[in-house]
This record gives sequence, C-alpha cells and structure tokens, in this order.
Amino acid sequence: MKEKDLIQIIKSVLNSEYIGDDCANLPDLGIVVSQDSLVEDVHFKTDFITPFQLGYKSVMVNISDICASGAEPKYLTISLSLPKYIDEIFVKNFYEGAKMAAGDVKIVGGDLTGSDKIYISAAAIGSTKGRKISSRSSAKAGYKIIVSGEHGNSAYGLNMLLNSKIAPERFIKAHLMPEAQREFSRQIAKNATEEYAMMDTSDGLADALIQIALASCVTATVDTSKIPHDPLVDIETVLYGGEDYQLVAAVPETLLKNLKDYTIIGEVKNDTPGLVIDGKFYKDIDKKLYNHFKE
Amino acid sequence: MKEKDLIQIIKSVLNSEYIGDDCANLPDLGIVVSQDSLVEDVHFKTDFITPFQLGYKSVMVNISDICASGAEPKYLTISLSLPKYIDEIFVKNFYEGAKMAAGDVKIVGGDLTGSDKIYISAAAIGSTKGRKISSRSSAKAGYKIIVSGEHGNSAYGLNMLLNSKIAPERFIKAHLMPEAQREFSRQIAKNATEEYAMMDTSDGLADALIQIALASCVTATVDTSKIPHDPLVDIETVLYGGEDYQLVAAVPETLLKNLKDYTIIGEVKNDTPGLVIDGKFYKDIDKKLYNHFKE
Repeated sequence: MKEKDLIQIIKSVLNSEYIGDDCANLPDLGIVVSQDSLVEDVHFKTDFITPFQLGYKSVMVNISDICASGAEPKYLTISLSLPKYIDEIFVKNFYEGAKMAAGDVKIVGGDLTGSDKIYISAAAIGSTKGRKISSRSSAKAGYKIIVSGEHGNSAYGLNMLLNSKIAPERFIKAHLMPEAQREFSRQIAKNATEEYAMMDTSDGLADALIQIALASCVTATVDTSKIPHDPLVDIETVLYGGEDYQLVAAVPETLLKNLKDYTIIGEVKNDTPGLVIDGKFYKDIDKKLYNHFKE
Repeated sequence: MKEKDLIQIIKSVLNSEYIGDDCANLPDLGIVVSQDSLVEDVHFKTDFITPFQLGYKSVMVNISDICASGAEPKYLTISLSLPKYIDEIFVKNFYEGAKMAAGDVKIVGGDLTGSDKIYISAAAIGSTKGRKISSRSSAKAGYKIIVSGEHGNSAYGLNMLLNSKIAPERFIKAHLMPEAQREFSRQIAKNATEEYAMMDTSDGLADALIQIALASCVTATVDTSKIPHDPLVDIETVLYGGEDYQLVAAVPETLLKNLKDYTIIGEVKNDTPGLVIDGKFYKDIDKKLYNHFKE
C-alpha cells in the first residue's frame, strides 16, 4: 500500500482540515507544528552517517518543515528509540549534532525508549508572529515559481555513498548535513501580503512542484535550464533527487522585489492541474519518486 | 546504560532548563509540549492489543503528559512507522481508536514511514491559558499528596495478558485503553494559586512520588492503606506497577476545598530527599521499577 493511499485513509477517518501540509497551522495558539521521523535502514544507514551528523540532520529536517510554512522555528522535541548496543558516546555525539543544527531553536524535551533499530522522531514548533503562513494549495495563475539554493546535490552524494565512490565533500555534506533555508523562508513570510505556496524539497523538487500544482488546481511550468545545480549533477537527479531541503515557492511577482538569493524557475498557469517540465505535461510523477533504501 | 544516565548526558550536552518534566512549558507561546513513543515488543505486543486499542492508547499516553502539566490538551501529531505487512485496515482502525481517545483534542499531522516493527511517536500540545502549570520540583513541606483513581490495575491486567490468564475486563481495559485524567488536572490547574507538583503514573506511583521528592528536595511520605486500589491487586503492584496514567500531585492543603474525586495518600515533609512508604525510607526505587517487556 502506498503512503499516499494510507494518508487518504487517515484523512477520511479524522475528517481533519489540518492533514495535508507538512506543518499544521494552529491560529488559536499562533503556532505551526510538524513531526518527522528518521528510521535506520529506511532513511539512513549507520555505515554512512556519524551520530553527530544524524543528530544534525534529524533537527534540520524538522526545522525545514517549519521553514516551508514560513513560520519562525522556535522549539523542538526529540524522541529517540535505541537498540541496546548504543552507548553513551553515541547519545552525546547525537545531541551535540542536534544542538549545533538547532542554533537558536531550543530542544525542550522528548523521550528515550528501547528498540531493535534506531528510530528518531522529532516534533518542531514555529511561531507565526509577524509571518504570513504558506499553504500548498495557495499557488495562483501568474505567480512565479522560485527556489533557494542548488538542487540534486544530496541525492548525488547519497548515490556516491551507496556505491562506495569518492565524491567531492559538498555532495556528501549536502546529503548528511543539509541546511534548512531559514533566511529564504523569513524573507518571503515577513514580506508576503497575499497567499502563497511553499514546500521544502525533502521528496525532490518535482514532487514538491506537483504537490503544489495538484493542491492548488493549477499547472506549474518549469524550465529545467533555469534550475540551479552543480555541473556534475544530471537533470533527472536535479528534478527527482530528494533531501536537498531547499525551498520552492509560488509567489506573486510583486513580492520578488523584497527578496534576494532566489532563482525563478517557472510560473503558475491556469490550466490542467499538473506539472509541465520543459513543455512536457505530467499529471503525476510517482514512478520517478526518490525511494531511499526501500525495495 | 540506564535511561536516567542517558538523560543526564542529554541534559549536560543541551544545557537546557527544559529537560526534566514530561512536558516542556513554553511561556512565550502560552503552550506546553510533550512527546512520547510506543515501540512494538518494548511497550506493546500485537498479540495482546488491537490496532484500535493501540491508536487509543498512543493518544491517551500523550494527553496524559499534558494533563500532568495542568495545561489543557489541544493538539496532537502522530508519526507512524509501519512494517510492509501492515494493511489499510490496521491504519483505519488505529486512527479510529486515536480519534476516539482524542475527543475534542485535534489530531493535526505527523508522518508515515516504513520500518521493520511498529513504532508510534506522538507529540501533544496544550494551552496554558487560565491554568497554573505544575513542575515536579514544586512540592513543598506541608503539602498534601493526592491521587486520582485506582492504582495497579494496568500492571495487573498486563500480568494476566502475559501469562495468558483470564482477568476481569476492568484490568484488561486499564492496561489497553487507559484514560487520561483530564478533569482532575483541570480542577487543580484552574484553582491553584501557588506552585504545585504533578506527574502521571506512567512509570508507577512510587516512581512518580520519588521523582517529585528528589526534584523538590523534600520527603514524600505515603500510607499505603490510603491508596485506592482494587482488592485483587497486591500493594507491590499498586506502588510499582506502571501505565495506570492516573495523576499524583503535591498541593497546598488550601487547594483541596476546590477539588473533588481525589484521595489524600500522604504528605510532604522537610526532611532527607526521598520517599517514605509506611514509615520506611527509600532514597531510590530503581530496582523495583516496572520494565515492560525489556529483559
């Protein structure tokens, strides 16, 4: 059973207006909240990642969810389930990585339990004060599609690790210690006066684009020649590689004058819901999705 | 390595004032947050618990953490990691149980990932509006120690399940579908004018009492003849059995006139930090702690 189908079941049982975006927006409390898990041998292998890097990445992927909403990341809780063979050095290094990634975001709780593999689940809370919050269903015809940073570096790095190849440090770092795009998010959320759509590229750039297009009932058109990427990384990896934790947003053109360090890669059109990549239409991209270590 | 020692390491790395209570109190946002995980074969076995009951219990243990703080439970996120053999019926039933337990608390997000065993981590958010928030370090000499409900039923039920014995329904239900003590919590937090200590009995009544005593640098004295319990349940189970998710609080005597449905089981004294049970002093109770399915 696919994750997408299971999420449909959850939505129908809960009959909740909240399930859909990566963060839930809770206006009565002035916060957004998200939760994301990393599972050994599904999302990471201990052969490739140090405890420090694992703590770092676990925190960053959760901060990235908050950034995708436009809220200001404030607090984190971390639940760790650890096999018996894990020692105190692992725990110390994990939390040192977590603390470095958190920066001024405070780690305020969580729990520790036993398990047979390493499971990490973190919940992140952001403040919506002074920020306009995104929704993936808020892309509108005429909006520009913009991205932060380079795309595909993380998947390229992972591929090198999986094939025991030597890769330049920047690719390995992109995969093992990604950076949440806090400044890109802040600029948009502080300056936006109209609704906008924003997601992180945890499941790949093309996936984020099609999620926004389908949720907003619009066509997202992109020109791959515009997407910033390393010359070593092929365009398939740029589009479908996951875990860059860059941001992609569909915003009104008038907002652009308030932003810096962004790249326009396409625009939103009022046409059949889906994604147009270099003129070719896709109503879904499931087959191309990035699948970690899953069979 | 013991959980307690690992938590010491985490505290020292993070140098955080938040780690300690089950909930983190975040006054700038007017919320408390907690996170708790349930791991297959550590906290539950699928032989004994249905998916509906598992969803129910996962939500209740997290609502119970919020109740222990005195805050009003408001929102939950649930992260589910599921083996491939899990089907949509499991997911549907799990969320139906979760929804029933949640009641007016809204389930607003989370994520789904693969794994080799079932792993459930939920984060809960409570509002502190109009509530005085507890801290386990706030018990003071002269305070009365009070509890909600009956103690030991959950551990008695678990023991019956583990030994394939038939037990009265009330014990099985206490273990598989515990109830968070929202009303007991509400009465205390709404009426308290002074600081107070409160914990749930997830790790047992004696454990909660000694945690409060040590954190508050006081002696907690209890009289076991006062602790409400089923006549079938022996006093060791009443004291050390876990997962009743009842509440135990140390409160000023003046607060009692505003409460109903509570039992006084002892009082707080200004003496050597520790627990006095029927006149016998304990500075720790580690050896007696309830250990689920752990070896």
